Amino acid sequence: MNLKRKDLIAIRDLDVEELHLLLATADSFKEVGGREIKKVPTLRGRTVVNLFFEPSTRTRSSFELAAKRLSADVINISPSSSSVVKGETLLDTAKNLEAMGTDVIVVRHGESGAAALLARHLRCSVINAGDGAHEHPTQAILDLSTILERKGRVEGLTVTIVGDVRHSRVARSNLWGLTKLGAHVRLAGPPTMVPAELKDFGAEIHYSLDAALEGADVVMALRLQLERQGAGFFPSLREYSRLWGLTRERLQRAKPDVLVMHPGPVNRGVELAPDVADGLSSVILSQVANGVAVRMAALYLLTGGKSDSVAMAANQ
Amino acid sequence: MNLKRKDLIAIRDLDVEELHLLLATADSFKEVGGREIKKVPTLRGRTVVNLFFEPSTRTRSSFELAAKRLSADVINISPSSSSVVKGETLLDTAKNLEAMGTDVIVVRHGESGAAALLARHLRCSVINAGDGAHEHPTQAILDLSTILERKGRVEGLTVTIVGDVRHSRVARSNLWGLTKLGAHVRLAGPPTMVPAELKDFGAEIHYSLDAALEGADVVMALRLQLERQGAGFFPSLREYSRLWGLTRERLQRAKPDVLVMHPGPVNRGVELAPDVADGLSSVILSQVANGVAVRMAALYLLTGGKSDSVAMAANQ
Amino acid sequence: MNLKRKDLIAIRDLDVEELHLLLATADSFKEVGGREIKKVPTLRGRTVVNLFFEPSTRTRSSFELAAKRLSADVINISPSSSSVVKGETLLDTAKNLEAMGTDVIVVRHGESGAAALLARHLRCSVINAGDGAHEHPTQAILDLSTILERKGRVEGLTVTIVGDVRHSRVARSNLWGLTKLGAHVRLAGPPTMVPAELKDFGAEIHYSLDAALEGADVVMALRLQLERQGAGFFPSLREYSRLWGLTRERLQRAKPDVLVMHPGPVNRGVELAPDVADGLSSVILSQVANGVAVRMAALYLLTGGKSDSVAMAANQ
Repeated sequence: MNLKRKDLIAIRDLDVEELHLLLATADSFKEVGGREIKKVPTLRGRTVVNLFFEPSTRTRSSFELAAKRLSADVINISPSSSSVVKGETLLDTAKNLEAMGTDVIVVRHGESGAAALLARHLRCSVINAGDGAHEHPTQAILDLSTILERKGRVEGLTVTIVGDVRHSRVARSNLWGLTKLGAHVRLAGPPTMVPAELKDFGAEIHYSLDAALEGADVVMALRLQLERQGAGFFPSLREYSRLWGLTRERLQRAKPDVLVMHPGPVNRGVELAPDVADGLSSVILSQVANGVAVRMAALYLLTGGKSDSVAMAANQ
Repeated sequence: MNLKRKDLIAIRDLDVEELHLLLATADSFKEVGGREIKKVPTLRGRTVVNLFFEPSTRTRSSFELAAKRLSADVINISPSSSSVVKGETLLDTAKNLEAMGTDVIVVRHGESGAAALLARHLRCSVINAGDGAHEHPTQAILDLSTILERKGRVEGLTVTIVGDVRHSRVARSNLWGLTKLGAHVRLAGPPTMVPAELKDFGAEIHYSLDAALEGADVVMALRLQLERQGAGFFPSLREYSRLWGLTRERLQRAKPDVLVMHPGPVNRGVELAPDVADGLSSVILSQVANGVAVRMAALYLLTGGKSDSVAMAANQ
Repeated sequence: MNLKRKDLIAIRDLDVEELHLLLATADSFKEVGGREIKKVPTLRGRTVVNLFFEPSTRTRSSFELAAKRLSADVINISPSSSSVVKGETLLDTAKNLEAMGTDVIVVRHGESGAAALLARHLRCSVINAGDGAHEHPTQAILDLSTILERKGRVEGLTVTIVGDVRHSRVARSNLWGLTKLGAHVRLAGPPTMVPAELKDFGAEIHYSLDAALEGADVVMALRLQLERQGAGFFPSLREYSRLWGLTRERLQRAKPDVLVMHPGPVNRGVELAPDVADGLSSVILSQVANGVAVRMAALYLLTGGKSDSVAMAANQ
């Protein structure tokens, strides 16, 4: 089986079979990451470009390592060193990269829809590594992969997403992914940050953290964009942390084997108390580890790899 | 046949045989860029350094991909992350890179003569990726390669170069390359931007775009450095665009099969009307594609590759 | 024999056997740097991350080339493009990189102790590429390697280190390395810059350059951090240069075959007169060349390489 699309832009677009294909392929690549020689020749001679208009250690490094472990050639372009300073349009930049023989462009951009725009106009593959407040599909797939790894299933689980849902592409991608796989999703946060309309998409809306945590199997804390302070979304860091920060005490309302997740980077003491971030329930570092495997899977499948040859690819 | 020089600094220095050697070698590498596995082992274990003191997506990426497709190890150094901030001289920086076992330094610098300075003092190869208003030789070679690809010849063609010729290393490199291969070159732009002395080097000088376009086989628009606004070279963007911007209507004075070229990045609506930039006459993306092959050829020949073994190299 | 530690943080921690092992292994790799194909497959499929919180052409490039010549996958992270701008802690950043399957983190940081902190909390290897005014161990090893190459021994040599010893991690690492291998170390500079307590660690303290140079086998000039001007450590550049700059005339007090060393980048005319920097006694570029071999040795040994298989590794 292979992926019947050239781009990965939004979890909302994927059907359940495609999600399962990505997750199963990622599982095959997890094994590669545990080896001493973490490299397979699958994408040798292919070119992957990381085109990041917003800074990111984690996501850029994760894609760069994924591509290198598949033996692709990778180049990184970030706005400060790119011709964006010369006023070139996003699409012209991307078309130039495509003309150089690029097979996959991984793009992060501040505007919702930027990745879809490129996908529509390019013949090469485009992976959305985060576009505005729209989607961040590989993040949702790595979150699903981590839940599956620990719980064996997604269906029927109660997953509580806490924080600034309004501005979060991570929340949006997870909402689609989790509901497609049959989880019950609760969105919790201050009313300024959790749009009530999202209940139309199958989510429960909570304006009290305690109620939202009651019996939860998984709690995902969203990163608070500290630069939003003073913009009227929350009164103060201290207030946000007191009302919405996850502490060990509060987590007792969730299931005893609850998983605590965070897309990183964590503001310690804001979204998560330090002992929660480092505690036994936390699977944050597993999310990071699975991220590389998920990105290998996405690169592999979008460039024509088939699920039945992954095992072979992983053993080359 | 091989290149009898260790550096590529200026088209003005090359004889016609050397130009033909570079163009023929680039042709061999174009085929590699069209493959699924765009990689040959020719420069495995060699080290290429991109030393860019001016930002550039296009040129740096093109050299980086060219080196990677030849299997060289590549490192990128740009002023913001380099010890230039610590006050080291250009030559000391380059000598240090050479001492690390670098085979080729690709240098872009704001000062005319910077590349020649390095070439004179280093034993390793130096490729000029643009020095001040002096030369940008690989750009001219990729332009010649694109013209040859479309027209089958350069000799006897009329090529009109439009814009800020005075400050353009692209114009200067193309003037030498085109005249060496027997084209008629017309330079067009406002008098502040087209030095009359250039007619001594075999170019026609035009201060009217319509006359300059009459019967042209190729039109190259130069990028307008928007940061020169207010420096007295042109009255305003709108005025520049009205007098010197290429529109479909204006292009009708040129031959019906005229090629429209631009070194990028394009200021849409300034040098080129959008429908010209994206029109059937435009070969801008071919220029970009050929750029990688031309840079592969330069890296290959300067490190001792011979033209008669290119086909072999390309098939390894 | 192999290195019985996972990290390289400080020369002060190493015993003499470990120093000799690193030096001997570097010698094996020097030969690789002289080849046309400067690459061995030793670390294929391993991941090395350069995590540089301070800018550095030389050290970052040297580690990057060392890792690439060992065939490792390398990624570079510098503060401007990292999530440090998002407020993540150093340790969280490093733990995330480790979770992605990183084998070695090479870290440069402005705070003394940063590398040791990471080494303590991570299972992967950590190499200190300079932490505050603490240590820069690979610099000292490459300095020792260069002295050995030229003098055949370190024991019994008189080595004079001149300049801002107080703020210099290079001076500190060399003090430990040189005294462990039996050299006599003299520290010279203005009293504000040479702490008298360092005599407790086996160094002679000199506040007169002429006396410090008398009969020296090796003179190491330290880089003057020009940004410290006006902070009261020295009255002016001109004054510093007049009192502490090495000139040919002054060097006549040293042995006739004295070696002049500098960790770079040199402020020409400040620490060294230009004819000294470029003179026959200067081994500055050998230091740079040896740096790559020393870093290959460190990467090789920390990831489990054994000294008796280096020759084999170097010949793969």
